[in-house]
Amino acid sequence: MHKLVLIRHGQSEWNLENRFTGWTDVDLTEQGVREALDGAKLLKEAGLTFDVAYTSVLKRAVRTLWRVLDEMDLMWLPVHRTWRLNERHYGALQGLNKAETAKKYGDDQVFVWRRSFDTPPPGLDPGDERFPGRDRRYADLAPDELPRCESLKTTIERTMPYWFETIAPQVQAGRRVLIVAHGNSLRGLVKYLDSMSDEAITTLNIPTGLPLVYELNHDLTPVRHYYLGDQEAAAKAAEAVANQAKGG
Amino acid sequence: MHKLVLIRHGQSEWNLENRFTGWTDVDLTEQGVREALDGAKLLKEAGLTFDVAYTSVLKRAVRTLWRVLDEMDLMWLPVHRTWRLNERHYGALQGLNKAETAKKYGDDQVFVWRRSFDTPPPGLDPGDERFPGRDRRYADLAPDELPRCESLKTTIERTMPYWFETIAPQVQAGRRVLIVAHGNSLRGLVKYLDSMSDEAITTLNIPTGLPLVYELNHDLTPVRHYYLGDQEAAAKAAEAVANQAKGG
Repeated sequence: MHKLVLIRHGQSEWNLENRFTGWTDVDLTEQGVREALDGAKLLKEAGLTFDVAYTSVLKRAVRTLWRVLDEMDLMWLPVHRTWRLNERHYGALQGLNKAETAKKYGDDQVFVWRRSFDTPPPGLDPGDERFPGRDRRYADLAPDELPRCESLKTTIERTMPYWFETIAPQVQAGRRVLIVAHGNSLRGLVKYLDSMSDEAITTLNIPTGLPLVYELNHDLTPVRHYYLGDQEAAAKAAEAVANQAKGG
Repeated sequence: MHKLVLIRHGQSEWNLENRFTGWTDVDLTEQGVREALDGAKLLKEAGLTFDVAYTSVLKRAVRTLWRVLDEMDLMWLPVHRTWRLNERHYGALQGLNKAETAKKYGDDQVFVWRRSFDTPPPGLDPGDERFPGRDRRYADLAPDELPRCESLKTTIERTMPYWFETIAPQVQAGRRVLIVAHGNSLRGLVKYLDSMSDEAITTLNIPTGLPLVYELNHDLTPVRHYYLGDQEAAAKAAEAVANQAKGG
């Protein structure tokens, strides 16, 4: 049986400021760092360890991973960064305050942008300084891979090839894999593993910083999954994320 | 023309305690962390940046790299860790206090172990808990790659294949490479690049935390090299390392 652990990064500066973040490279808050350390402690208490780690090219995920590796005395672990594990690209909404955006476009429109499966937010102009084609960390992407915006659907479509081509073979080879990523790239993975519907995945809220453990059969079908730590705390954390999603 | 930057990690806990370290995975001191940050600031002031970074599997080098990447806003950079960039393995001396070892074996013997090119220190027994074969980070090494001890010569012999096979092709492909490693693995690289004799390399002391910039022709022959920052400070830092090496 294989085990796979997923961690969603902790609170970021723009979570705190209630702004659309997406691919904007904002850092963790102090609380976000504490969440990472708490997650690492849960992993140690559970006796888990890893052979390889995967993360995005966004510092809130990388820093979460760094704190986990440091706390677990695994700074030597091979780490692979990929844009395919990035958060959903929020297009022209990136940087805007969520409450102000709701006032401007209406609650219903913002709800659709945020919670529908396949409706993307307004796209960026390629001349916009927020366009990923202007950031050298994405220099190796093909032109049609550079998003101007993403829906949850298109986020999942660019995340999953990395699972199939790179991560899944490592899990099947018996390597203990840790993935530290973002709410929407992790949704893609969870949707696939648990065969969830397009509808169901839009309402799944993965709590931040809590290790989500998947036990998988040899063919990578899941046997069960669970959050480490206090289950009540995990439920509350998921609810807090859901409330924030309502625009609080 | 290509540029390559080398950084030797800053002060570690066992530098401070005057103990033989080698592959023992000790952390940086606060001063060591400051040295890393100062090095990063010099890189920024010089307008340098990177496309890829290489380091060892020892946390004093990894943490130095992390602090540099963080300070330079390059946490997204691809990082490759390899045992081939590790410090020289100090065999049965690892963990011993340098002054006590000199009392026990005599100054002359310790001087030979520390400063000759090809005399290794006493080897570890494979049953010794310090033997790398007992550490899972070295699980992929072939039996004859697991050192019981290393001379500077054998350190260089296992470091250089990584340069030729992995790093040099990246430099030639135009990638801006940062290497954060250890006194003796970096000596191997410097010896090769500057065609230094076995004798000359044993007296070269690379200062800690100061970026050493190599400018290389297309065929990777060096045009010149220099330390960033105050040249007098660089000379003093090298001297301080040399004095420490005398057993102070």
